[in-house]
Amino acid sequence: MSEAVVTLDGWYTLQDFRKIDWASWKLLSNDERQAAIQEFQQFLDKLNEVQDHKEGSNTLYSILGHKADFMFMVLRPTLEELNEIENEFNKLTITEFTIPTYSYLSVVELSNYLAKDSDEDPYQNPYVRGRLYPILPKTQHVCFYPMDKRREGNDNWYMLPMEERRELMRSHGLIGRKYAGKIKQLICGSSGLDDFEWGVTLFSDDALQFKKIVYEMRFDEASARYGEFGAFFVGNLLEDHDLSRFLHV
Amino acid sequence: MSEAVVTLDGWYTLQDFRKIDWASWKLLSNDERQAAIQEFQQFLDKLNEVQDHKEGSNTLYSILGHKADFMFMVLRPTLEELNEIENEFNKLTITEFTIPTYSYLSVVELSNYLAKDSDEDPYQNPYVRGRLYPILPKTQHVCFYPMDKRREGNDNWYMLPMEERRELMRSHGLIGRKYAGKIKQLICGSSGLDDFEWGVTLFSDDALQFKKIVYEMRFDEASARYGEFGAFFVGNLLEDHDLSRFLHV
Amino acid sequence: MSEAVVTLDGWYTLQDFRKIDWASWKLLSNDERQAAIQEFQQFLDKLNEVQDHKEGSNTLYSILGHKADFMFMVLRPTLEELNEIENEFNKLTITEFTIPTYSYLSVVELSNYLAKDSDEDPYQNPYVRGRLYPILPKTQHVCFYPMDKRREGNDNWYMLPMEERRELMRSHGLIGRKYAGKIKQLICGSSGLDDFEWGVTLFSDDALQFKKIVYEMRFDEASARYGEFGAFFVGNLLEDHDLSRFLHV
Amino acid sequence: MSEAVVTLDGWYTLQDFRKIDWASWKLLSNDERQAAIQEFQQFLDKLNEVQDHKEGSNTLYSILGHKADFMFMVLRPTLEELNEIENEFNKLTITEFTIPTYSYLSVVELSNYLAKDSDEDPYQNPYVRGRLYPILPKTQHVCFYPMDKRREGNDNWYMLPMEERRELMRSHGLIGRKYAGKIKQLICGSSGLDDFEWGVTLFSDDALQFKKIVYEMRFDEASARYGEFGAFFVGNLLEDHDLSRFLHV
Amino acid sequence: MSEAVVTLDGWYTLQDFRKIDWASWKLLSNDERQAAIQEFQQFLDKLNEVQDHKEGSNTLYSILGHKADFMFMVLRPTLEELNEIENEFNKLTITEFTIPTYSYLSVVELSNYLAKDSDEDPYQNPYVRGRLYPILPKTQHVCFYPMDKRREGNDNWYMLPMEERRELMRSHGLIGRKYAGKIKQLICGSSGLDDFEWGVTLFSDDALQFKKIVYEMRFDEASARYGEFGAFFVGNLLEDHDLSRFLHV
Repeated sequence: MSEAVVTLDGWYTLQDFRKIDWASWKLLSNDERQAAIQEFQQFLDKLNEVQDHKEGSNTLYSILGHKADFMFMVLRPTLEELNEIENEFNKLTITEFTIPTYSYLSVVELSNYLAKDSDEDPYQNPYVRGRLYPILPKTQHVCFYPMDKRREGNDNWYMLPMEERRELMRSHGLIGRKYAGKIKQLICGSSGLDDFEWGVTLFSDDALQFKKIVYEMRFDEASARYGEFGAFFVGNLLEDHDLSRFLHV
Repeated sequence: MSEAVVTLDGWYTLQDFRKIDWASWKLLSNDERQAAIQEFQQFLDKLNEVQDHKEGSNTLYSILGHKADFMFMVLRPTLEELNEIENEFNKLTITEFTIPTYSYLSVVELSNYLAKDSDEDPYQNPYVRGRLYPILPKTQHVCFYPMDKRREGNDNWYMLPMEERRELMRSHGLIGRKYAGKIKQLICGSSGLDDFEWGVTLFSDDALQFKKIVYEMRFDEASARYGEFGAFFVGNLLEDHDLSRFLHV
Repeated sequence: MSEAVVTLDGWYTLQDFRKIDWASWKLLSNDERQAAIQEFQQFLDKLNEVQDHKEGSNTLYSILGHKADFMFMVLRPTLEELNEIENEFNKLTITEFTIPTYSYLSVVELSNYLAKDSDEDPYQNPYVRGRLYPILPKTQHVCFYPMDKRREGNDNWYMLPMEERRELMRSHGLIGRKYAGKIKQLICGSSGLDDFEWGVTLFSDDALQFKKIVYEMRFDEASARYGEFGAFFVGNLLEDHDLSRFLHV
Repeated sequence: MSEAVVTLDGWYTLQDFRKIDWASWKLLSNDERQAAIQEFQQFLDKLNEVQDHKEGSNTLYSILGHKADFMFMVLRPTLEELNEIENEFNKLTITEFTIPTYSYLSVVELSNYLAKDSDEDPYQNPYVRGRLYPILPKTQHVCFYPMDKRREGNDNWYMLPMEERRELMRSHGLIGRKYAGKIKQLICGSSGLDDFEWGVTLFSDDALQFKKIVYEMRFDEASARYGEFGAFFVGNLLEDHDLSRFLHV
Repeated sequence: MSEAVVTLDGWYTLQDFRKIDWASWKLLSNDERQAAIQEFQQFLDKLNEVQDHKEGSNTLYSILGHKADFMFMVLRPTLEELNEIENEFNKLTITEFTIPTYSYLSVVELSNYLAKDSDEDPYQNPYVRGRLYPILPKTQHVCFYPMDKRREGNDNWYMLPMEERRELMRSHGLIGRKYAGKIKQLICGSSGLDDFEWGVTLFSDDALQFKKIVYEMRFDEASARYGEFGAFFVGNLLEDHDLSRFLHV
């Protein structure tokens, strides 16, 4: 048996991808649409308050292409809170005019491959806490994709000795470091929670950086031999003041 | 030919995953919705009575994300009873406002890999009976996933000699044992009954344990080389007194 | 080139899996539903008459889970007759309240792997005729699945010499024989007719036997290395007198 | 680089598979249905006229099972003509009561594996022209499937030397020749046009021959090691005088 | 780690594939349809103006078969502009009568495999600029497909040394060059943007060239061993004056 790496686990994360049923949305009167947008905004305001208290985080991005029109993303300490928010969102008027197309459930995760030995409780370390319980950045663009480590014939990540995995992850991390300042990445673990093993969310003000980092990493052995990727979702920040315009018909 | 392991088989299990059509559900009057919830509750009460007599078991969990809004799970001695319950459930008013998204049919199973020789009829052993005909625990969280043992090139579980499979399962079981007290697992066999060979249901009051056990096991050769996993469904317990709130619009 | 085995071919077989749209079905008046059930029953009566004359066979099983609510199965000497019946079925009132979810087209088949040399025309042999033109048994349970023989890397059934395939099928058949009296199996070939190479239908009064035979066979090299399986459908016999109850709302 | 084989290319081919929405079709009055059938018949008459002038070909088959109710197939010299016909078909009344389930775009193709050297322009050869610009036969049954040549590990058709491919195709052709008189086959190339590399349409008055040829060929190395098959569609000829009956409700 | 190739990146590209809901479209009055077409035309006129200023490009092709009825394609310097156009398109009347079936997000890309060393900033080179910020040609036909480079066992593009990849791409390019004058190709990178690594769009006045180039390239090692292809979409140019006819019912 190969030695499992220990992870540090933070907030639960739910990403909810939806299309808008524009034809039905148009059937509402202007007043009804305004009321629905206002109700949606109040719902978001409540979440923003929680975020102001650093008891969770949330964001909204429009998504390009046919896979979704927007991604709604929430982080909370418990599944109960996430489910509560999802249940409340499901009952909003605006949601009647959306079609769920994808979602992802995961937990913010720091892998310990590169951890130094220490007696300190990492969950008390302020830097670690900032990473495990993050306030999502308000970058212009987002990129989300789920991924697995491959287990196929001679390319079986989970059969590699810890040392080899550590070395591969170190080299992988060096590429990531080159994008510091350009991309903020949020790694969430999802073994036992959703269909892939990780959910990766990249934030950047320059969408081209998503292409550059993913393409460069693909030549790195950790991805080239061991990465399996799901669908990619890319979009633009939808701030509160954009919402009316986005939904105006 | 590789020697097949003998299994002990208990109750048939049907897991039924459904989304709620919230927009249509809202179109009902308050009274109609109340009547529908009450009818659903009476249906569940009947099942709970059977459970009180230990002639079957059932449970209800909300599910996170777009795959389903809830999972309804029933265990019974015969397929006739399961089908009867499914048929009755299909005709409830509440069910008109649901969309089936997945289901899984299986049989509670104890594999004999680790059985000791004995003259005893295992089906008379009270411990074994408790495992084959279980009353489902009321933990806060559930995790369900179907799985296969791989048959691919050099990674072919079914071509391994019994001794090697026994050793791999022993090591696998040791990991499971570390989670005793944190996770209760229900293993159901589904060869010849559904699309995968097993359906695994994990129960825990701490959802993070689902991630920990599944991730740790993935480094174990039995999973790393031989495990193939389907979709993962994770949710929160929906007790009777939660139902009205969950469905309130 | 590897030598192809010769098959004996009997009746064409069409299996039609359907869900019921219960919400719409409820919108009918009691009288309309009764009329629709009666029309369906008359349609089945006509098929049963053909079966009484041994000019075809047919059966109806409810199916567990979300894949289908029932399977309607018909055997006939020609595709014209099958298509005629399907066309008539499509126009029934009851069918307006069903959603087709799967179907399978095949031909009852006896493979000649184990045939003895003989001058006899096998199509005149009464035992062979009984197997090629079978009246379907009225067992309590049914299990259907399509399957292929694998053609992958070193596991390529169609590249094996006839002698090796014959030996593998002989061993496979020995397992099947252990289930004589418990399971009746109908093997249909579907190369060139549907998406897999065979459709297997198992009939039994004890559904657990489906799990036992499929699981035991999976350790047999013919399945372990060379079997590829599609979806599994399992259900309960729906006799004429069950129909009203099954459809009663 | 392996040497590409040269192909001769004839008419563009579009195969359009559709289900009928019987419940909606029934909602029309008898007169409306008659008018829709007549409009459809006039549309087909126009195509038949083109066929009479040997400037294209077309046919209509009912399809068994849930994949489609019928296949409409048209051959024309240009994509513009095919698109024009598709656009016209889309606007017929009858088409409002159909649901497209599959389609296939390809070009009638003769591969040059077995061509003799010659100075002759093959496009002027009457035999070749008859094969590239065929009038579809009116056989009782049809079988359509798309296919690829495999490119996987050691089984990579496109890495084989021309001589080896030629030899494999020669052996493959010998099997085909055994079915002369029983099956007419139309091979269409679809690299760059649709999702597979070829679309194969078999025509026969005996549907069992589809099973026999596909099964026998599967033991031939060209299929056993190098064939990848899509879905199979099988049906019965729908002649003009069958149309009313097929659509009568 | 294998060395990643550097790319030059131009305009963002969104390809949007849609079916038309002809039955609903017919329900409009002639006047309503005319108004919807006119609104669509005005929307396209605005895009054409941007194109006249070389600040973006756009085109419209009808698509053959069931995958889509048309492809709408837009190129812009930023994701914000693309999203804005998509959002505006979603709100048009005509769009209410369409069903999105596929889309692709990418960036026009020049790979540097064959670049010569130079001090010049390639983004200032007029030839390079013409390729990165192209005005789409108005050819009669289009062919779109997404593709990956394979990472499977011994066929792992991303593990090859740069020199070997360069040589494979050189040979690949030689085939492409044979089609100069017949096909214009637009290569877009989509790592980190959509589900495949590239989106390829071919433009030609002779659709047969799509088949010829794709088939010939498949024998080239870069495709034979390392190419993985998604769905293929093929269609005909829909110029402004064709639109009314295409949509006339």
